[in-house]
Amino acid sequence: MAQSQNLAPGTQPASPVDVRSSPLAAHRPVPIDHVTLDDPVWAPRIRLNRQRTILGQYRFLEETGRLDNFRRVANGCEGEFQGLYFNDSDVYKWVEAASWALAQANDDEREQLTTLLDTVIELIVAAQHDDGYVNSYFSCEREGERWSNLKDRHELYCAGHLIQAAVAHTRTTGKTSLLAVATRFADLIRDVFGPASEGKREQTDGHPEIEMALVELYRTTGTRGYLDQARFFIDARGRGTIGGSDYHQDATPLRQQSEMVGHAVRAVYLNAGAADLLAEEADPALRSALDAMWRNMTTRRGYVSGGIGSRWEGEAFGEDYELPNRRAYAESCAAIGGVMWAWRMMALAAEDNTRWADAIEHTLYNALLPGLSLDGEHYFYQNPLEDDGHHRREPWFGCACCPPNIARILVMLPGMVATVTTDRAVGEADALHDTVWLHLLAQGTIHVDLPAGGSITFGIRTRYPWDGEIEIEVIDLVEAGNLTLQLRVPGWAIGATGEINGEALPPDETAPGQYATLARTWSVGDRVRLSLPPRIRRIEAHPRVTDSAGRVALMRGPLLYCVEAADNPRGDVRDLVLGNARDLHAGWRPDVLGGCVVISGTAELDPPDAGWSDTLYREIDADRSNGRETVTMQAIPYHLWANRGRGSMTVWLWKG
Amino acid sequence: MAQSQNLAPGTQPASPVDVRSSPLAAHRPVPIDHVTLDDPVWAPRIRLNRQRTILGQYRFLEETGRLDNFRRVANGCEGEFQGLYFNDSDVYKWVEAASWALAQANDDEREQLTTLLDTVIELIVAAQHDDGYVNSYFSCEREGERWSNLKDRHELYCAGHLIQAAVAHTRTTGKTSLLAVATRFADLIRDVFGPASEGKREQTDGHPEIEMALVELYRTTGTRGYLDQARFFIDARGRGTIGGSDYHQDATPLRQQSEMVGHAVRAVYLNAGAADLLAEEADPALRSALDAMWRNMTTRRGYVSGGIGSRWEGEAFGEDYELPNRRAYAESCAAIGGVMWAWRMMALAAEDNTRWADAIEHTLYNALLPGLSLDGEHYFYQNPLEDDGHHRREPWFGCACCPPNIARILVMLPGMVATVTTDRAVGEADALHDTVWLHLLAQGTIHVDLPAGGSITFGIRTRYPWDGEIEIEVIDLVEAGNLTLQLRVPGWAIGATGEINGEALPPDETAPGQYATLARTWSVGDRVRLSLPPRIRRIEAHPRVTDSAGRVALMRGPLLYCVEAADNPRGDVRDLVLGNARDLHAGWRPDVLGGCVVISGTAELDPPDAGWSDTLYREIDADRSNGRETVTMQAIPYHLWANRGRGSMTVWLWKG
Repeated sequence: MAQSQNLAPGTQPASPVDVRSSPLAAHRPVPIDHVTLDDPVWAPRIRLNRQRTILGQYRFLEETGRLDNFRRVANGCEGEFQGLYFNDSDVYKWVEAASWALAQANDDEREQLTTLLDTVIELIVAAQHDDGYVNSYFSCEREGERWSNLKDRHELYCAGHLIQAAVAHTRTTGKTSLLAVATRFADLIRDVFGPASEGKREQTDGHPEIEMALVELYRTTGTRGYLDQARFFIDARGRGTIGGSDYHQDATPLRQQSEMVGHAVRAVYLNAGAADLLAEEADPALRSALDAMWRNMTTRRGYVSGGIGSRWEGEAFGEDYELPNRRAYAESCAAIGGVMWAWRMMALAAEDNTRWADAIEHTLYNALLPGLSLDGEHYFYQNPLEDDGHHRREPWFGCACCPPNIARILVMLPGMVATVTTDRAVGEADALHDTVWLHLLAQGTIHVDLPAGGSITFGIRTRYPWDGEIEIEVIDLVEAGNLTLQLRVPGWAIGATGEINGEALPPDETAPGQYATLARTWSVGDRVRLSLPPRIRRIEAHPRVTDSAGRVALMRGPLLYCVEAADNPRGDVRDLVLGNARDLHAGWRPDVLGGCVVISGTAELDPPDAGWSDTLYREIDADRSNGRETVTMQAIPYHLWANRGRGSMTVWLWKG
Repeated sequence: MAQSQNLAPGTQPASPVDVRSSPLAAHRPVPIDHVTLDDPVWAPRIRLNRQRTILGQYRFLEETGRLDNFRRVANGCEGEFQGLYFNDSDVYKWVEAASWALAQANDDEREQLTTLLDTVIELIVAAQHDDGYVNSYFSCEREGERWSNLKDRHELYCAGHLIQAAVAHTRTTGKTSLLAVATRFADLIRDVFGPASEGKREQTDGHPEIEMALVELYRTTGTRGYLDQARFFIDARGRGTIGGSDYHQDATPLRQQSEMVGHAVRAVYLNAGAADLLAEEADPALRSALDAMWRNMTTRRGYVSGGIGSRWEGEAFGEDYELPNRRAYAESCAAIGGVMWAWRMMALAAEDNTRWADAIEHTLYNALLPGLSLDGEHYFYQNPLEDDGHHRREPWFGCACCPPNIARILVMLPGMVATVTTDRAVGEADALHDTVWLHLLAQGTIHVDLPAGGSITFGIRTRYPWDGEIEIEVIDLVEAGNLTLQLRVPGWAIGATGEINGEALPPDETAPGQYATLARTWSVGDRVRLSLPPRIRRIEAHPRVTDSAGRVALMRGPLLYCVEAADNPRGDVRDLVLGNARDLHAGWRPDVLGGCVVISGTAELDPPDAGWSDTLYREIDADRSNGRETVTMQAIPYHLWANRGRGSMTVWLWKG
């Protein structure tokens, strides 16, 4: 195992993306264990995740033979490999989720998780071959097939998840047993893959993931070869070495791409890995490609929910504006990959623009959370924006990429809340000045160790996202005080106002889409108030999005809403016409879905008339009677849909 | 080879579906060689098909190794099998197309086609194994894999196309060399597949086709075992013997199905085969399943073009109302299968309702013809109803099912024009009374041999589908006269009128959607005039078809229209708003696409405003300025699209 100064006990932060030493990253994350969330939406899910989701997933790993696959390798290869060839990756993602969960666990939870983790890690350790190779599918009778089908068989993808699991486990436990496995495997990979001129295989994997993993392994171990290897895999892509298809992101070198194409999860994983590279080494062509692709994704190829990858065929990005609602794919894993990419992009520069954090928050609430049931044990693979009542969450999948991915992003979430940037203080050549950035707005406590020295702890009180009143109080200061707080004012928050210790902030400080800059010498008890009017917004889609044309979606604050049969028993919600309804109002409903703010108002119900009963197309007849009926409409946050009885749902209501 | 009285020279009609002796078929077709079309749309395509399309496809069969695959089997298995495992079927479909083409060929064409046919048939004969098996993929090194993967490998599908090719060749040439191959293979299939109680394989093929083929082989040879075998294959389906998926129509027994599911081509081929069974033996459950499925397809799962199978994923039917326009699959082969199914349903009963013929005509014009370029040498696999200019016809495909399928349906088309039914004449116990049915309206000549004796020849003069004036004249009579003419008045033809020898027909005789019944003793020179006002119709889709909601399609007579960039250079046709345009008018344009009737009118161009340049979703703002511009709009028949320069196209225009 490569040795590094970073491995000294206590030096590992509970941060999935540890850019503290990355020369081109402006932000350093506030670690997961320094943030305690107590908000009404994420916190209960994260708690449930630790207490139920992760434990339930462990049982599935066992019941479906995913753990037996490792036992089999260690125990003489008896029996058969079970399941899909990439099933190891589900185990690794579970290890990663359980490891980050330790960062927020209470003693009981920690004990339980540690026992399970130790069991699983022991299996992985035992399944490693003498040369460092680990993959339970390509062991035993398939040992001779190693690296024989990089395009389809996910070997390096599984390796990447092993590495990320090992990094997580090391960073939250200080233990290096799994990291030793990972580095030995990574060393083997470095021996096998590389320039042909060095006698190595100049190829990459059909499913990106190894790129992010190797950069993070570099950050953990300090071994630069892992960073070089990550760059090699990114450079090897788009050159036709694995078939040359868009599906595998192998048709065009990444630096020449400007559109999001192919398998959506793979695409965003690759770009997240590329963004990791940008934190380490300047690469203007890569940066400009990522910017163009982000722009293409968010202005042409994303759902109003933040979901991406509209096509079932190939789980892929569609063409510009190809965004069917009922037949949306919008895989939960793609949303997760999008968040990972956006966070890494945000980390690069101290940018007074909330676009990255807005995207992260929007995706977490509206594309990731819908993937998980309120009971914490059922998952969506696909996330349609309209449904007839058939699409329901499942407890597990044969291809189970989404459940453990949802588990790991939820435990990572507190680590995305805040960051710190540091620069030279104005006029003081040797002094450092810290800026704390608050990206995600949620009730809780944030303890920030400051690079310039000392620490500051903020207490945040708010019912956000249910309302927009946010109070941030300095509740502890250690050897600190003179620092800047950058407080995100989301892009949607028109009319935002703020005050500090009762004094109003200048309006331009609270302009939406920027961070309110609060530079001062702080004292315990200082209070910042941010008021984000949670206005109900009627949203329309670009006219070329034909499936949403003539329709309107409702948003309030950061949340997308939908109408569901359970709240709208009369008729079919897909026939609701919102028109120019001026009476839309929001109200707290403790009895609905564990408590949420619903949007109510008057709408019209315009069911297909009797003339449609036996036809699909007909001549327009202006004289046809219109059987519209006025009804009360009630919308719920989209992330809460499909938690009650079956029935139709739609995000888009008719305009007129 | 099974012997049968039907094989006597001259007894084989040039009809793809020979239901003359089928006890439960009311109609018997007027053979292909008894119909000469001279209409402005089909006739030129059929001529081009004989003179260019079929010849060009022969070259592709040769160049792509499809013929070499047969040579290889006969010549000691040297080299490699080339292409996809079902490539034999393209050869068979070509043989079938070329064979039916003989029925309308002039001497030069006949000589050329015969030479090619003899060459190909010789290859097939030589590739047959001693036990009757023919399949160039499962020969040589794969001989041991015969029947090993019925679900995926299309062996019986290929066999079915071989049989249909043989039937066609026998019916148009009287030669039995290919029929001998087909019957020997069919006999082997009967030995291998059947009830497990007889020690046979109780399974069927992943891709239906063998069913229609075996029924037709029965009709040609009189060997009842082929009919029984067809029924066996239909009964074996839906029982999970080939995986149990909707995709393969194996999830539900056909008699229990009521919805169109799975791979669209397979579904309609299966149903066409089932309809063939219904002509031979009563099967009320099967009939009622087919009726329900037809209803589901036409009232829930079909495009306004008549195209079917909306999903790219699995080339499959979507759910009810899942009909995306730009991302339509609508495979050309599925339209062809739909026509084959509809014709067989129509043949069953003498029904005074034009629904089947309406569907056949509509699909031929609007879902089949778009698949072929005006030059006769480029094909669509998918047929979207909206496009940004990227979707263009190709000269050939790796999976080349569509080109030879288009070729064979075009040569079959004259055989769908007319049929005869015969019943006891009223009051005359022993006398037969013939009724000639004119289903497709097109200029040409139809010679009908009458079961009751003699013949009648009609000359039809019309510019249909460009206008609706149709004159039908009796131009020859041989020992006949007292018969009924059933003349189709299409469902769209509101306001149709007719006259016979200058005398008006009663209005209820020309009600749309029925056949005008003209019973009389006919004389040479008798003239029927049918006047079908070719009104421009503004069509809307069922509100649940969200991708077409708020939009309008134009039809005129039997033709669907679209707007294409070539005629509408200003802006993008996808931004055209038709509104309540009252000035739509049709006009003959000899200079457009070889001559066609275009629809012109005033529309508004409503391009996405500047505010959309960098966003996909935005808050609705009623005050936003509307930059609509009045423009002249020109629409062309949809079947002619993509024959000029690249540019956007849409069938659906905005309503308002």
